[in-house]
Amino acid sequence: MARRQGSHSDITGPRVRAAALRLFARHGYAAVSMRQIAGEVGLGAGALYLYTPDKQTLLFSLMHDHMQELLEKLPAAAPDQDPRARLEAFARFHIRFHLDRPDLVFIAYMELRNLTPENFAVIEAMRRRYEARLEEILCAGELAGEFRIRDVKLTTMALIAMLTGVNTWFREGGRLDREGVEAIYRDLVLKAVGAE
Amino acid sequence: MARRQGSHSDITGPRVRAAALRLFARHGYAAVSMRQIAGEVGLGAGALYLYTPDKQTLLFSLMHDHMQELLEKLPAAAPDQDPRARLEAFARFHIRFHLDRPDLVFIAYMELRNLTPENFAVIEAMRRRYEARLEEILCAGELAGEFRIRDVKLTTMALIAMLTGVNTWFREGGRLDREGVEAIYRDLVLKAVGAE
Repeated sequence: MARRQGSHSDITGPRVRAAALRLFARHGYAAVSMRQIAGEVGLGAGALYLYTPDKQTLLFSLMHDHMQELLEKLPAAAPDQDPRARLEAFARFHIRFHLDRPDLVFIAYMELRNLTPENFAVIEAMRRRYEARLEEILCAGELAGEFRIRDVKLTTMALIAMLTGVNTWFREGGRLDREGVEAIYRDLVLKAVGAE
Repeated sequence: MARRQGSHSDITGPRVRAAALRLFARHGYAAVSMRQIAGEVGLGAGALYLYTPDKQTLLFSLMHDHMQELLEKLPAAAPDQDPRARLEAFARFHIRFHLDRPDLVFIAYMELRNLTPENFAVIEAMRRRYEARLEEILCAGELAGEFRIRDVKLTTMALIAMLTGVNTWFREGGRLDREGVEAIYRDLVLKAVGAE
């Protein structure tokens, strides 16, 4: 993403993004104005345009960087790692990553409709790359005879939805801590593919 | 919900709700004005208030009636029905019901944040009643020794998220028809609780 150089913009740029994220998550992209975003970080409406050309660029940049971080942080498999261990690592990673970023996850799902077609295509391709990583694990498990899966593509989508759903109900300080939640989801995922 | 009597309002009332649903799903609740909703059904802004006192009432009424229909249509279990059959029936019902109402499902999740606290409490209680129906099936399966579940509450949330996720990727006329999708999700759900 284009950003102004220098220490001032290095601080203000992230503050603009954080404010946009907060406001989009609270009110929805379409209901938030550039003026509101500027107000939130104490800038005049005109000054905001030094940091971003428009609201669509802000939305795209938030969603793009979120997907990029997701793809980069997903642990790569060791060549000899067995599919069960890889699936477990995927499940635990997915839950941890998503619980840490509730607003971004909410926006990444809900505001797809507000991306321009070109921007949507980019985000969609990144999503598919992420899904392909899980699909690959499921295929490997099938081939190794460790998993029993009726439809790899559909199981990929089902497992991702199940894991992401943790964001809709998990509250810090509740009955289960993150480690406990991860362990239970791990168990559900392995059982769902017939590996346990 | 309060409605004017007579044949004219009986036709216009549902059209107002349908227009609000369409616009909320497309642009988000906060971005849609009463004037836009009126325009969509060919009413003046003033005339719209004959059908609904405000936008919040429209949103609440859409979400409330959606949850009520969900609760009413969910098949009741026969007293002697075994937990596996009940779980399968729940999974199939949930998928069919949600695939038929993509806009309502989207709004029911996304616009919770825009309900007043009182309205939120009502919808939340209805959600919990629906979740309790699944939880009851899972408990029955555990007690009967047919299911292996580590945490009934969390498995309830995980299965509902997995099943609802079908709305994010299913497209009519794709590789799988609804019957095929239902069969695969049924298999995933039964395996996830250790019943297959």
